[in-house]
Amino acid sequence: MTDLIPVISGLSKKTDSKIVMVVLDGVGGLPMTPGGPTELEAAQTPNLDALAAHSQLGLLELVGPGLTPGSGPGHLSLFGYDPLIYTVGRGALSAVGIGVKLNAGDVAVRGNFATLGEARTVLDRRAGRPSTEKNVQIVELLQAAIPEIDNTPVEIYTESEHRFVVVFRAGTEPLGANISDVDPQVTGVPPRDAQANDEASQKTANLVNAFVQRAEAALSAEPQVNGVLFRGYSDVPHFPQFSDVYKLSAACIAGYPMYKGLASLVGMSVLDVDSVEDAPEGKLDALRQSWNDYDFFFFHVKKTDSTGEDGNFDAKVKKIEAFDAILPEILALNPDVLCIVGDHSTPSKLASHSWHPVPVLIHGGHGRSDLAARFTETEGQRGSLGLRPGTALMPLLMANALKLEKYGA
Amino acid sequence: MTDLIPVISGLSKKTDSKIVMVVLDGVGGLPMTPGGPTELEAAQTPNLDALAAHSQLGLLELVGPGLTPGSGPGHLSLFGYDPLIYTVGRGALSAVGIGVKLNAGDVAVRGNFATLGEARTVLDRRAGRPSTEKNVQIVELLQAAIPEIDNTPVEIYTESEHRFVVVFRAGTEPLGANISDVDPQVTGVPPRDAQANDEASQKTANLVNAFVQRAEAALSAEPQVNGVLFRGYSDVPHFPQFSDVYKLSAACIAGYPMYKGLASLVGMSVLDVDSVEDAPEGKLDALRQSWNDYDFFFFHVKKTDSTGEDGNFDAKVKKIEAFDAILPEILALNPDVLCIVGDHSTPSKLASHSWHPVPVLIHGGHGRSDLAARFTETEGQRGSLGLRPGTALMPLLMANALKLEKYGA
Repeated sequence: MTDLIPVISGLSKKTDSKIVMVVLDGVGGLPMTPGGPTELEAAQTPNLDALAAHSQLGLLELVGPGLTPGSGPGHLSLFGYDPLIYTVGRGALSAVGIGVKLNAGDVAVRGNFATLGEARTVLDRRAGRPSTEKNVQIVELLQAAIPEIDNTPVEIYTESEHRFVVVFRAGTEPLGANISDVDPQVTGVPPRDAQANDEASQKTANLVNAFVQRAEAALSAEPQVNGVLFRGYSDVPHFPQFSDVYKLSAACIAGYPMYKGLASLVGMSVLDVDSVEDAPEGKLDALRQSWNDYDFFFFHVKKTDSTGEDGNFDAKVKKIEAFDAILPEILALNPDVLCIVGDHSTPSKLASHSWHPVPVLIHGGHGRSDLAARFTETEGQRGSLGLRPGTALMPLLMANALKLEKYGA
Repeated sequence: MTDLIPVISGLSKKTDSKIVMVVLDGVGGLPMTPGGPTELEAAQTPNLDALAAHSQLGLLELVGPGLTPGSGPGHLSLFGYDPLIYTVGRGALSAVGIGVKLNAGDVAVRGNFATLGEARTVLDRRAGRPSTEKNVQIVELLQAAIPEIDNTPVEIYTESEHRFVVVFRAGTEPLGANISDVDPQVTGVPPRDAQANDEASQKTANLVNAFVQRAEAALSAEPQVNGVLFRGYSDVPHFPQFSDVYKLSAACIAGYPMYKGLASLVGMSVLDVDSVEDAPEGKLDALRQSWNDYDFFFFHVKKTDSTGEDGNFDAKVKKIEAFDAILPEILALNPDVLCIVGDHSTPSKLASHSWHPVPVLIHGGHGRSDLAARFTETEGQRGSLGLRPGTALMPLLMANALKLEKYGA
């Protein structure tokens, strides 16, 4: 679809109104058996029900028809950035996902620990899947051995098990990320040399090859975790910032690093919150304490997704009900526009993200009467907002908050 | 809209699940009088009704708002190829429509027989609309006179009445198709010389001009059909293939050459079927016999369109009921995902194709509860799939068959 970001940038204006976007991660569901209820339909949600009676409802498709959104694309879509246009490389997303702040010119690379045999032959591309604790030890050892290469600072981070991330920090010249994989993707052959595919990436290729060599030297005493493989290099995406696009001073209230990282990519301030997901007081405190400092709040609730990923229908229902219980505390702040939405569906039936549209609710602002009675998937079909791409949400919130000028004369 | 073909190509995977897409050609209709039923609403369809109660329903707009799809664009949209992006030239579509297989580098050209007077002046651009029988005689005469030009094989085919198609078969070098029309579009002037608009098309322009000259010589004894006019040159479109885009091994079960040709353009295997449209046993046999050899079946039913084109409401109703009667035989094969859809509307009231969205039904897979009760235009409005572009269908079928990976992490 058409990229609306430049259009919105030209129409948005600063006002006093406040917008809260609550993202119930993976909240969309499916019936476990034909004709049965979804998780949202099964949940007892008196507060959401009361809100829905005076709200605009609809359904959002975050990436496209039949396309199952990852967390990154799902959130970018909610923030107004078409994820088919605004892409984040795997390396950068991994770094963002573990809370590493990237700067323009840096390169982030995803790595696997591997087991190498005689003549550097790859025996196991995942080094026997070490524990994350073992990964942390190895990363400490490597970080001590390789603090920098040729004056380029090198940062090494544990992701989990055999996965880690390396960030090469750029100096005055940005580093290119167009280089070939070290990972041969098969066993029985040695790791490949990284090759630059353009001039701007030559220095990065040299850094990667030097890293591989020094890591193998540092790990030579390890029986199993004695090699590193790289693929998924990415430079830092530079997205138009919330302050420019929407003239919003935006805050992120989230527990998990991935969501904080995505929020920082679009220019939100990431607030310190108590990240215990099942004790929402920390997040509510952050919201209350910073209420006067921002005019947009991204409030993230994770457990609706985690329970769906576990395939635990009843647990997901409980997490929805737990959110319903704290909803009055958010309403008590009296936001001008409150939105409740998901970043994708995670039906317990599939125990994974899915392509199904998510329900969306907009409260406050200036809506029409709505045929939808509850915040559910089926009622969303009857809502005045219709079925729309996820990127429609931010313009609708901005409009309802009266923060958009007329388009054309 | 965004072209999803490259996105889907990167996410699709081979699995064991099987998809059947039944296209009821032109099935969408209109009430004959305000408030009356459409053809689908008037039809007694107990099997479709039972299926709809456990299916996802919606409406598809094949090309765009208010745009009436031809058979080519309508089917390309169903196959996932945006017909505003993936175009088939008129010459190629004419050749495909009469069952001519085109190869890369060939050029197909649409021709009109014309009546020429003194000094080659065009008197009638349609040669008095000869009968198709006369057309066949003239084509035989021309084919005998012009089997090749300068070692380029020339094939001449009857379309109907004054229309014919010439295919120039490429040798080692592909032929260009960027040449000017021979048809002056007015009478009282001679046919124009074809001119190449780029270097790759110079040879084709020479072939066309030589053809015109030799045809006029061969037809000099004919009183009325004594000239040829050309416009609508096209090279062979090369579309991304089903095996690459969807990782599907796809079979086409259709009677008419046009649909077989379109299916072969996107890489489906065209099965031999008994093409008697009103005796569907041949098609059902083909489906049953090839069931283990493919994972996607395009099953085409023509008569719902033909009867609509005739303006015969009752006959179209009967054709819909005839399909309903064979539906259990398709269901007996137990496809993982079954889709029933039209390639455009052909309301009997208009006796022509129309722009109205067509109902779509997806059975199997992983859908939500649906407010739609029947496979009709009005009930489609209440379906969980919503109103979407036709190109959304293939991604949705792929998702429901669990053949698509997640987009992004």
